Amino acid sequence: MKLMRLGPVGAERPAVLTADGRGYDASSVTTEFDGHFLSTGGVDRLRSALAAGQLPQLALEGQRVGAPVPRPGKVVCIGLNYRDHARETGAAIPPRPVVFLKDPGTVVGPHDDVLIPRNSQKTDWEVELAVVIGARARYLDSPARSAEHIAGYTISNDVSEREFQFDLSGQWDLGKSCETFNPLGPYLVTPDELPDPQALELRLSVDGKERQRSSTQQMIFDVPYLVWYLSQYLVLEPGDVINTGTPAGVALGLPDQPYLRPGQRVELAIDGLGSQCQTLVQA
Amino acid sequence: MKLMRLGPVGAERPAVLTADGRGYDASSVTTEFDGHFLSTGGVDRLRSALAAGQLPQLALEGQRVGAPVPRPGKVVCIGLNYRDHARETGAAIPPRPVVFLKDPGTVVGPHDDVLIPRNSQKTDWEVELAVVIGARARYLDSPARSAEHIAGYTISNDVSEREFQFDLSGQWDLGKSCETFNPLGPYLVTPDELPDPQALELRLSVDGKERQRSSTQQMIFDVPYLVWYLSQYLVLEPGDVINTGTPAGVALGLPDQPYLRPGQRVELAIDGLGSQCQTLVQA
Repeated sequence: MKLMRLGPVGAERPAVLTADGRGYDASSVTTEFDGHFLSTGGVDRLRSALAAGQLPQLALEGQRVGAPVPRPGKVVCIGLNYRDHARETGAAIPPRPVVFLKDPGTVVGPHDDVLIPRNSQKTDWEVELAVVIGARARYLDSPARSAEHIAGYTISNDVSEREFQFDLSGQWDLGKSCETFNPLGPYLVTPDELPDPQALELRLSVDGKERQRSSTQQMIFDVPYLVWYLSQYLVLEPGDVINTGTPAGVALGLPDQPYLRPGQRVELAIDGLGSQCQTLVQA
Repeated sequence: MKLMRLGPVGAERPAVLTADGRGYDASSVTTEFDGHFLSTGGVDRLRSALAAGQLPQLALEGQRVGAPVPRPGKVVCIGLNYRDHARETGAAIPPRPVVFLKDPGTVVGPHDDVLIPRNSQKTDWEVELAVVIGARARYLDSPARSAEHIAGYTISNDVSEREFQFDLSGQWDLGKSCETFNPLGPYLVTPDELPDPQALELRLSVDGKERQRSSTQQMIFDVPYLVWYLSQYLVLEPGDVINTGTPAGVALGLPDQPYLRPGQRVELAIDGLGSQCQTLVQA
C-alpha cells in the first residue's frame, strides 16, 4: 500500500494511493500517519477499510503533496554508506556506520521549494532511500529482527551545505539541518510492495542533467543491519526516519563542484518509490 | 515564574511553583507547556490567572517531576563551550560554537533513573544550563535580539557515552542519544526571575563527591551569541532546547576516569534553577 498526505502545509490529510493510480481519502480511519497509527496496526485497518470500499475516492490533481509522515521524532542519517560516495569525498570506507542527526523540522513535502541558506555557497543534493520506523526498536537481537520494526520506505533528499557541514566544526549536523533541507515522499510504500529494498535504482538530476545513478545494492551497511545497529545505541520510535546514505554524484565529489543555485530544479527517483521535484529558492 | 510538569511519565500536568514554594495547578490555562503555549503568550496568561487567584493549589509532595517542557522538537547541543572543559578533553578552544544534536526522545524528568547502555564502559555526566526557546528564531539580526526568543532556563544533564561518542565514528550524536540521556528540569525559570544567565554557579556531584563546580561566566560563547549563531543555520522553534555546554570535571577529563556505574547517584544544581538527582541503572 502507498500512504500519502495531501493538502496545504500543516493541514495535510491522509490518503491512500492504489496500484491503479487512484487516490482514496483515509481520514475516516486516522487523522494522521503518525507513530501511534503506524505502531497500532493502522496500516492493516486502512487496508481493510479500502478493501471494504469504505474510503471515498478523491482527486489527486492540483493537490500539494506533503511528507508521507508528519514531523518525525528524529531523523537519523547514515554518512558515507555507499562505496562510490565515500570514494568521491576522499573518505575511507567506514568500518561502522557513521551516524548523525538532522533537525526533524527540516522535513518538507517532496515537491516543496528548497531554500538555499543565507551565506551558503555549497548547497548540495543527496538522493537517499528513507526508512520509516513502524514499531519501537530497542536492543534488537539481530538484523533479522529489523523487518518487524519497519513501516515502509520513501525517498529522501538529504540536502547538505558542505561549508556548514565540514568547515565550521568537526560535527556535521549544522550543515544538514537548514530550513527545508529534507524533502520526503511522495508516499510511504509498505514493505509488502517493496520486497527487496537492496535492489532499487536511485536517480537524481539537476536541471535535467543526471548527477546520481546507483543502486541500493551498493550500500556498505544494508537496511536490516542499520536498524539493528542503531537500536544498540538509541531507541528508534514509530514515525522516526532513517536516511540510509547517498551514492556518488553529489556536487562535492564532482570536478567542478556545481553546487545548487536559485532557480535550479532537482529531480529524484527511486524504483518503486515514485519521484520528487524541488525548485531552489534563496532564503 | 517557575513552570513544572507533575505526574506519571506521559501523563504530566502543568503546574506553577511560586517564590514561597507553593504549587498551583495550571491545567485550567493549558494542557501543556508546549511550543504553542510558549509562543502565544501562555506565560502571561498563566501569570494573570495566578495573580487573580484562579489556579487551585496542589500538593507537591510525592509527585514525580517531569521535564518542564514536553518532548522538544529538537535538542541542540554546544560542545566544548567552557574553557576549562575544552582544556581537560585535550581539545583546542573552538573558534566557533561546536554544534551537534541529541535525540529529543532522550529527555526525561530531573529525578528519573538514567540507564547505562548495554556494552557501555564510559557513561559520563555533564551539568549544563539549558535554554528553552519561546519564539521562532530564524536569521536573527544580532545577539541583542536573542532575548525575545527565550522562554526560560532549566538544568540539563547532557549524559554522554564517550566510547560511542568518540570511537565509533567522528560524529558525536550516537554517544549523546542513548535512552534517558537527557534529564531536564526540575522547572523552567522565566527570564524575569533570572536576570543574568551568565553569572550562575553550576555544580555536579557523584555519590556526594563533587565533580563539577564552575560558573556560566566561563562560557566561551554566551547564550545570546549561541541563539543568534544557531539561527543563522537552522530554525529554532518554540519548545526547542539548547544545551549550552559543560564545564570541567567530567569523568573523561579526570585522571582515573571514574565513569558511572549502576547504583550511583548524580546530583546537579545551578543557582536559581533548583537541583536534579538521578540514580544510574543498567539498561
